[in-house]
This record gives sequence, C-alpha cells and structure tokens, in this order.
Amino acid sequence: MALNVGLVGYGYWGPNLARNFSLNKGCVLATICEMSPKRAQQAKTAYPNAKVTERYDDLLEDSSLDAVLIATPVSTHYELCRRALEAGKHVFVEKPFTQFAGQAEELVNLADKKKLTLAVDHTFLFTGAVRRIRDDVKSGNLGDILYIDSVRINLGLFQSDVNVIYDLAPHDISILCYLIDEDPVSISAHGATFGLSEFESVAYLHLTYPSGMVAHFHMSWLSPVKLRRTIIGGSQKMIVYDDLDQFDKVKIYDKGVSVKAGDIEALRQALVDYRSGDMVAPHLDRREALALEADDFLSAIVEKRAPISDGRLGLRVMRILDGAQRSIASDGRKVTLP
Amino acid sequence: MALNVGLVGYGYWGPNLARNFSLNKGCVLATICEMSPKRAQQAKTAYPNAKVTERYDDLLEDSSLDAVLIATPVSTHYELCRRALEAGKHVFVEKPFTQFAGQAEELVNLADKKKLTLAVDHTFLFTGAVRRIRDDVKSGNLGDILYIDSVRINLGLFQSDVNVIYDLAPHDISILCYLIDEDPVSISAHGATFGLSEFESVAYLHLTYPSGMVAHFHMSWLSPVKLRRTIIGGSQKMIVYDDLDQFDKVKIYDKGVSVKAGDIEALRQALVDYRSGDMVAPHLDRREALALEADDFLSAIVEKRAPISDGRLGLRVMRILDGAQRSIASDGRKVTLP
Amino acid sequence: MALNVGLVGYGYWGPNLARNFSLNKGCVLATICEMSPKRAQQAKTAYPNAKVTERYDDLLEDSSLDAVLIATPVSTHYELCRRALEAGKHVFVEKPFTQFAGQAEELVNLADKKKLTLAVDHTFLFTGAVRRIRDDVKSGNLGDILYIDSVRINLGLFQSDVNVIYDLAPHDISILCYLIDEDPVSISAHGATFGLSEFESVAYLHLTYPSGMVAHFHMSWLSPVKLRRTIIGGSQKMIVYDDLDQFDKVKIYDKGVSVKAGDIEALRQALVDYRSGDMVAPHLDRREALALEADDFLSAIVEKRAPISDGRLGLRVMRILDGAQRSIASDGRKVTLP
Amino acid sequence: MALNVGLVGYGYWGPNLARNFSLNKGCVLATICEMSPKRAQQAKTAYPNAKVTERYDDLLEDSSLDAVLIATPVSTHYELCRRALEAGKHVFVEKPFTQFAGQAEELVNLADKKKLTLAVDHTFLFTGAVRRIRDDVKSGNLGDILYIDSVRINLGLFQSDVNVIYDLAPHDISILCYLIDEDPVSISAHGATFGLSEFESVAYLHLTYPSGMVAHFHMSWLSPVKLRRTIIGGSQKMIVYDDLDQFDKVKIYDKGVSVKAGDIEALRQALVDYRSGDMVAPHLDRREALALEADDFLSAIVEKRAPISDGRLGLRVMRILDGAQRSIASDGRKVTLP
Repeated sequence: MALNVGLVGYGYWGPNLARNFSLNKGCVLATICEMSPKRAQQAKTAYPNAKVTERYDDLLEDSSLDAVLIATPVSTHYELCRRALEAGKHVFVEKPFTQFAGQAEELVNLADKKKLTLAVDHTFLFTGAVRRIRDDVKSGNLGDILYIDSVRINLGLFQSDVNVIYDLAPHDISILCYLIDEDPVSISAHGATFGLSEFESVAYLHLTYPSGMVAHFHMSWLSPVKLRRTIIGGSQKMIVYDDLDQFDKVKIYDKGVSVKAGDIEALRQALVDYRSGDMVAPHLDRREALALEADDFLSAIVEKRAPISDGRLGLRVMRILDGAQRSIASDGRKVTLP
Repeated sequence: MALNVGLVGYGYWGPNLARNFSLNKGCVLATICEMSPKRAQQAKTAYPNAKVTERYDDLLEDSSLDAVLIATPVSTHYELCRRALEAGKHVFVEKPFTQFAGQAEELVNLADKKKLTLAVDHTFLFTGAVRRIRDDVKSGNLGDILYIDSVRINLGLFQSDVNVIYDLAPHDISILCYLIDEDPVSISAHGATFGLSEFESVAYLHLTYPSGMVAHFHMSWLSPVKLRRTIIGGSQKMIVYDDLDQFDKVKIYDKGVSVKAGDIEALRQALVDYRSGDMVAPHLDRREALALEADDFLSAIVEKRAPISDGRLGLRVMRILDGAQRSIASDGRKVTLP
Repeated sequence: MALNVGLVGYGYWGPNLARNFSLNKGCVLATICEMSPKRAQQAKTAYPNAKVTERYDDLLEDSSLDAVLIATPVSTHYELCRRALEAGKHVFVEKPFTQFAGQAEELVNLADKKKLTLAVDHTFLFTGAVRRIRDDVKSGNLGDILYIDSVRINLGLFQSDVNVIYDLAPHDISILCYLIDEDPVSISAHGATFGLSEFESVAYLHLTYPSGMVAHFHMSWLSPVKLRRTIIGGSQKMIVYDDLDQFDKVKIYDKGVSVKAGDIEALRQALVDYRSGDMVAPHLDRREALALEADDFLSAIVEKRAPISDGRLGLRVMRILDGAQRSIASDGRKVTLP
Repeated sequence: MALNVGLVGYGYWGPNLARNFSLNKGCVLATICEMSPKRAQQAKTAYPNAKVTERYDDLLEDSSLDAVLIATPVSTHYELCRRALEAGKHVFVEKPFTQFAGQAEELVNLADKKKLTLAVDHTFLFTGAVRRIRDDVKSGNLGDILYIDSVRINLGLFQSDVNVIYDLAPHDISILCYLIDEDPVSISAHGATFGLSEFESVAYLHLTYPSGMVAHFHMSWLSPVKLRRTIIGGSQKMIVYDDLDQFDKVKIYDKGVSVKAGDIEALRQALVDYRSGDMVAPHLDRREALALEADDFLSAIVEKRAPISDGRLGLRVMRILDGAQRSIASDGRKVTLP
C-alpha cells in the first residue's frame, strides 16, 4: 500500500521533490504546505489532487500521513524536523541538514528513539557517476584509498549569509562520507575574503584520517573557469571524476605505485614500482538521481532499514563543516575531531 | 668583445647550457669541467674548440674567464658558487639555488660586495607564456592580484633524497616571485607519505601576503593524470595558464567581481557586481627559453645590471621552500616569515 | 496593440512555440489547434485563456487572428501554409519548410503577392553564437570567406522516413545561407546505408560557389562521439564554432595566409605569407534563441519588413537539400544548380 | 651475423634512418652516400666508422653491402630503387614510394623476380597507436568495418610542387591500407586552390569499397586549428584515434547499432538496436616507431618474409593517390579503380 507523504516548502527545490515523489508508485503526495499564497496557488494547479495548506500543523496532525518532506530554508530545518519526528512522521530533509552539528546529532538520536526513518537529501550520491565510483571503492578495485582531492570552483554568486565552504563543500563532503567509512581526525581550513564579502569566497580544506588517507577540497566563487573535478587515488587504481565532462564523467586508471612492506632500504633507493595500464570510462546509469533517491527513502521506510543518505551520514557531513568553520575562525589552525 | 665562459658539470642539464651558450654570439664557451672521463670525452667531441678539464681550479685560475656556469648536483652549489665569486667570476647556477636559504643569502651578499653578476637558472621565467603573464600583471591589466592557485601533479618519479615540494614547487614558486613583488608573511604546508617513501609524495602549500593575496600550490607524484595549471585571479581580469595546452597555453578572461569601497550594507545584501566578457588567448613568443636566459645573463654582465632571474629572486624562492619544510616538519602549523 | 496568433500542432515542438509566444508582450496566444484529445487537454491546462480547437478552419475563419504558427509534421506544411496565406494570415512554420523546393517557391511567391510575412523556424540563427559569427562575416573582419567545413555527427536515432541529410543538415545549411549571400553552383553528395536502413546514415556534401568558396558537410548517425563543429576560413581571420563547448563556443583566430595578386612566380616558390596572432573567444549573448526569433517575427509584421529567417532563406535551404538528394540518387554525380 | 647497410641521402630524414639503423644490433651502417660536401662532413662526424662517399655506385658495387636505405627526393626514388634491386640489394625507401603508381608496380615486380626485400617507410604503421588499432580490427573486435573517416588539417606550409593530398594523405592512406585488406573500387576527390597556389590547399577524398565500406579524408593547409583524428566505425565497436591527444590517443567505444538481417519491415519502423557501453583507452607501446620499423625490415631479410610495410602496400597507397589526382583533374568525377 502506498505511503502518504506531505511536503513543506514549495519554493526553489520543493517543486522537484513534488514532481519526483508524485511520480513514484510507492507514495501519494497528499498535502503541500506553503505559506506564500502565490506559491500555494502554483502547487494547487500542479497537484490538483493534493491538499494545499499554510499550516505545518495540518501535516503533523494528519494521522494518515506517513512522512514529511522538508524543503524550507536551512534555519528552519531543525525545528521542523524535530516536530515531525515527535509527531511520528518519517522525515526527508534538504541539505544542509541543520545549522549546527549538535542539532543534527539530536535529530538522529530522536529518530532512533522513535524508530523513524530520517534521510538528508544529498542528491549527488544517487547519480550514476557517484554510485559507480562507490562500487569500485567498496569492491576493493582501487586498493587502499590514499587520497581524495576535489576542486569545485567557478565565478559564483556570492551568498549573503554563508561562506563558500557552506555553499559548495556539502556536495563534495557528502560524496567523501559516502565513499569512505572512517571519519577524519583533523581539519585545517584556509580562506580569504579579499574585502569582497564578510565571508570567505575562496577556501581550502585539508582533512587527515586515522588510516593515513588525506582529503583536500578547493572551493571558489572567484575562478574564471568552472571546474568540478575529484581525483580518488588508490593503491591499485585511481579515478578522475569530472562532473562537467558531457560524455565520460568517470575515468578509471589502472595506474599506481607500490612498494614492498618493510623494504626500507628500497625506499631510500626510490625503488617504487610504477604501473601504467588501460583507462576505462564506464557506461553510467543516466536515470534521474532524485527519482532514485525518493525510491530509496520510501523503500527504506517499508523495509525498516536505513536509507542510503541517512541522518548519520548527514551528521558526519555537519561535523566536518563545523570543524572547517572552527579552523577558519582560528586562522587555519588544525582542529582535532573526536 | 665576447665574454669567455666556463661550464662545470656536463651531466643531465650541462649539455643544454653548453649548446645555448655556445650558440650565443655574446660569449665563447672556452672551458668545460667534468670529472667523469666518459662525459668529458662527450664534451670534447661536441665542442672540439673548448678546453676540457677535470679540475674546477682550472676555471678559477684562468684570468681570461669572465663567468662560470654551474650545472652540478645541488649539494655542491654553495661551495662552487662561493669559490667562483671569490675568484671574481660572474656565476650562472642551476636551480635549486642552494640547499638552505642561509647559503643563498650569503652568496647574494658576496656577489653584491664583489659587484659580480649572479643568476639562478629558473628557465620557466623566460618562456613566452610566463613573460606574457608578467606583462599583464605588471601593466595593471589584471587589477589587484587576489590569488594564485597552481596545480602540478602527475604520476611522477619518486625522488630518493627530496620530497615532492623540492622536486616540483621551485618552478611554480619562481614564477610566483617573478609575478609578485611582495613576499609572503606566512606558510602552511600539508603533506602525506602514504608509507611509500620517507618523503612526502603529495603536498599542499598555502601562502598569505601582506596585501591579502593568497597563493596555493598542489604538488603530487601520485596523480593518474598530468596537470600543469595556474590560475591568477585579478580584480579586473583573470588568467588560466595551462602549460600542457599545445595551442593556447595562456587564456586571459575579462571576468571579475567588484564591490564599492565601504559599501558594507551592500555586502550584506550580496550586491557584488559580476563582469563576464571576452577571453583572449594571445599569440606567444616561441623562442627557446634557455637561449633567451643565456642572452639575459650575458647582457646583464655587459650592462652592469641585475639579470631577470638574479640571486635575489633565487633567495626569495629558497625562503619559501625553507618555510614550507618547517611547516611540514611541525605537522602543518603556520610558519611566520620575517 | 498586440497581435493575435494561433498555433496549430501541440506535439513535440508546439509547446515551445506556445511558451515563447505567450511570454512575448507583442502578441496574444489566442487559439491552439490540436487534433489529439490528450494533447488538446494539455494545451487547455497550460493556457487556460486560449481557445482550444481541433478544427484548423477555426483559425482561418477567425478574422481577429493575425498570424498562424505551424508546428505539424512536414508533410502537412505546404497545405497548411498555403491555406493560411490565402486566408490572409502571416505564417511562422517549422523547419524543414516543405517537402520539395517547388512547394517552398510557390509559398514564397504567394506571401509576396498577398504582402504577408512568412518565416521559417531556423532557431539556430538566433543563438548568440551564430549572430556573433554573422557579425564578423558581414563586417568583413574575416576577409573573403574561402571555405566552410561542418561536422555534425553522433550515435543518432535512425529516422524511419528520411536520411541523415534531411535530419541533420538543415541546421548547418540554414547557418550557411545566413552567413553567405551567394548560392552554390554545384553539389556533390556521397552517402552510405551499410544495410542498416534504406536511407543513408552517413553522408558528405560538397558545395562549390561562384566566388571560389567551397562548403563541406559531414553528417552521421553512426559516430561513437558527438561532434558539432564548424570551421569558417577567411582570408583574414578564421572561426571555429563548437556548439558542444560549454564555455567558449566561438573562437576567432587571427590566422591566415596571403599572396600578392599576380605573383605567379612567388607561388611557384611557395612564398605564401603566414600570420598567426591572438585567438579571441567573445562573450556571447545567452538569451533564448526562440524568444528572440518570436520577437523578430512579430516585429517584422508590425514593421512590414522581412523577418531574419524568411521564406526566401527557407527556399535557399530547400534548393540545397533538393540538390543533395539528386546527387545521392545519381551516385555522387555533381549536380549543377541554376 | 649482422647485415651491412648503406644509406643514400643525409638530408632531412636520412639522419633519422642513420641513427635508428646504427643502433640496431642486426646491422652495421657501413656506407653513407651524400653529394653535398657539408652534409657529407656531418655524416662523417656522426658516424666515424662509416665510409662516406658521393658516388651511389660505390654502394651498388660493394658486394659486402646487403641493403640500401633511400632517403633522397621523391623524383629520384624510382631510379635509385631500380638500380639497387638490379644490383641485388634489399631496399628500404622513403615515402612517397614513387611519383607514379606504374613505377611502384615495376619495382614490386622487380623485387619479386630478384627475391629481394623491398620496404617503403610508412613510419606511422609502427606506432603503438596504429599497431593497437590493427590488432582490434584484425581480431574482429570491431565487427565489420563500416567506415573510416580521417581529418588531418592545420595551418600548413604550402608545398611548391605538390598539393595537400600528396603532402598529407599518404599517412592516412597507408594506415587505411594496413587496416583494411580490400582495395577501393572508386575514388572521388574535391579540392580548392583559393588562388593561393596552383595546387589544392584543401581537399576531400571519398573512397568506396566492394564490401560497402566507405573511407573519407579531409586534408587542409588552411585550418586555424590542428586536428589529427581518425574514426573507425565497426558494427560492434568503434575507435577514435586522436594523434594529438598526449595521453589517450586511442579510444575504443563499445557502441554500435545493429539490425536483424532481412528485417525490412523493422527497418521501416526504425527498429535499430543501439548499444552504448564502456570506453577503453588502452595503454600503448611507446617504443620509437622507426626503431621497430628498422627491426622489421632487417628481420624480414633474414627470415625471407615480406616486411610489414612492403612494396605491395606502398603500391596500394600509390594507386589511391593516382586515382585521387585523376578525380581532381576531372573536377571531382568518380574514378573507377580496377
């Protein structure tokens, strides 16, 4: 039997959620909550069978509603999530999850306690490119992951309320958390404002991991060229993921170096073995990421399992963003994570 | 009248110096000093009119010799330079200038005292690409320089005696020092060895400047793809310099953002002006960089002026490399420069 | 006062016309004619203020209607255009204009006689890229145009009723006719079916012009890579137009060769002068092409001038397509055009 | 026991032959014939153990000499080859083989009669890229070869004695003949001079084959951009060979279309199956092509087998060039080959 879902927020992203959930056979888009009369009217026209309301409580008080989709400004996420969970609703909330990591943690615990499904919308995780990369990482094809280096730069719209890290990094950090199970032990972040804004418009993030892996992120609103490129260096294979490549977004290189364990003298002689083989650009699934994500959320409710992009992953992302802010605030000092 | 020059070291780079100086009408390649009998024989065959010797003192004691070109291993640079300067010879020495910044400083002072010309071979400064970029920076075409971001990565040969910074960064740092007159106030460097070597094989360098400019360098021996790309962000225009582009190495973008001075409220409203205009890839001079560099060194001697790549520039490069090493050694802590 | 327009055909392309004309302040989308009940219902929902009918005569008999937009299958174009013109309506018709050049000629003459505006929808002519290229050609910046070479290939959908020329060439040929005023004197066309279809899936077209200019087109449904690239070689400058380049679609090269008139002996000695200067990728207007095209059609009616993509240009395109078909049918023989 | 070889012509290409054959353990470079005193002196300096002469007869009369390498202007090839073969020497001759196909045929027959090895230097056939492509074609990996499309254009040096076809096409045509065993049945060639030269500076070549395969070549000295790209379309897989790609010259696409035999009704319905799979850029052998070619020639003599680039392949290339000239001369008329 199909689940009943209600959507709150029919602004920039809400219509995308409405479209994808309404097309999904596993649910009925029963209610849309929107306070702007103009947008409420647009919702009514597009979804004549849905009830449109300006009262969030109408969703919470409706016992036939199974889940709530939250697409409102980030400053409201914590409150709306909390109330929905307390009302016994499963929750699907836009990224960024919350304003502070502490709020995210509280929501994860609340969902656990109430045995409810909590998902954070990190759409990139459901693209054919990222799913394929994860398969290769998880299967061990790449060997040990040594580093992840990501560049996300362009001449971007300055945000009036957040810096370039909060604007651009959530994409890359959610992908990082999806690919790598361990969490970083330290974060160093460097940024610059150039007097153009009170917030950083260029930033670099450096993370270190217990395993020795490092991750580095370069974000900018001030680049003359647009780049979206992540390199994942494994001991066996390496991947270059270029999201702007129209044809071959993912390239898997059979390239690497190796050294025999304990061979310290060899190291001194630079006796590292190189391997340079074929490159493969796999055919990628082109289905719409958001449709797959909606499907995963609904199935997770039915199957009583965690969704792929669950609150825990959202919390891991928030902790890294929090650490980055603290390092920026202390002028690039290394911040240790618990 | 042509100057007489002597070359010490006929190994990897020495033959390039011999060829370019021997073709220059401003000098005569009079003597070549090389200790390996095999290489000495090669030098004799290639330059039958030059005297070939294994004694460095033969160069220093020859009063007809005006200048010495030093193309020996870096550990010998300081000693060979010092002795040549003390013997009254002008000096052209391979990069890296010396092992330590203190040695470089001593040599610069010695050359000053003896009124001799001292040049460090940073060949990249003489390429058509870098000369064109410098023209644009110096003419003010780019406006204020906000940042320089450089990536120099590939699957590289691990060095047995230095880390990836000493191997790859001198190119980018000499270009940086050539473009920008001010010196950095702090350096943070992060690196990783991945157990593959005792030295870092991946490294990131972050420099801050009194003007607010920042510079960032990414170097790696562990990338599946080769990249050589520098972005120079100005307040008026921005440049992308891709040294691997066979046709258009330098692209100048009429792109930027601006904000009125003191317009703090505007900042809060994100009222930044964007400008997106034409891109120009200028035709570049394709003459051989090393030939131009030889010419500059010889002219500088005759004209009693500093060469473009003089000891001072070499010293500025060494101070940044020194700072990077100290930051790496203290686990990424920010190192303040005097 | 706004013009009243009626649209016939609400299938694949019709909704795009409806959207662009309905947003244009110069007209009112008064009527939509569509025979499929399902699509008629979609039209009614999207344009509640428009009258929706299944009778084409409702448009022709409505004396308040100034113009008819035709977005039906090509086999119906001639008949629907003719009847609209005879009913005194201005006409905007989808490409390809008609099935045969003779039909196109008849319609152009009819519009002339009735003093009505007749436009053929060649949307590409209104892109920022093509408008910029035309400016350069018309201003004489490129010098004499020597050749145009166009490649439009990909792994394409085989059409059941036309060959690859009719499917892909109209884009390139309409651009050619827009850039170049003269018409070709001969056409040679080569094609191959590979037993995959009764129609050609790969084709090459070669056109010669009175001025000595040549044009060449390569079209394919069987290429593993997608290419959309036109080179325009002028005696002064040359342009490369790559429609798949996300950032710099048009590149203008200050490159060329020249030879002094009458210098026959010089020719024998290959004394051709080369010039290799800057490349400029101009900033292009990014407004939607179809919106500009709608605007041009409506203004042309009001100003009683020919629209940019008028029936004459449509006829020139049809004559080239006709010639190509005749050459293909005679196994590549050169077909002379009047 | 090593073969003795003599070289005639120490101009532009001769030194490359001298270097590669002198480094080969299978032969001794015994004699060099060069008429220019200056070049003869250069040969003497570089190969002090070789005899240097200005008389070609010194090579032919030397009974210890097994083979002659010919690197003289093309107008002398026929005569020098013929005399060497008549003197009982194996022959390795620069491309283009001869001036006319008839001469090439005579030389092939003469070598057969004398049981001597005759090779034409088509160096491209020995590159890692072309050898890899041939492996895929010959193994059947690509399925049936449907078409070959090759583009070789740049702003090139106008030749004073030949058109762009003779200058640029031999590379592509020798590759074509190496990949495909069948010979074309017809050639159509179109060219244009633009008044810049008495010879064509832009040309297009269209070849048809008994199997239905087509081959098309675009050559130009008048392109603002340099392109070296060949697409090989197979019924199973397709290859793009971009000789200017520094990293992935060969890309093999698992893409194609297929249709069931005899399924005529399906054709009318456009029921063609598409397949879009992975792309593989294989690691290529980077050994120097000319060294491998020298090795193949010497081994062929010893093993009494035909070399890879034998006179027969050279003759096939000449026949296509001849046909192209005849088609150009008759204004693009299709020329039938025997």
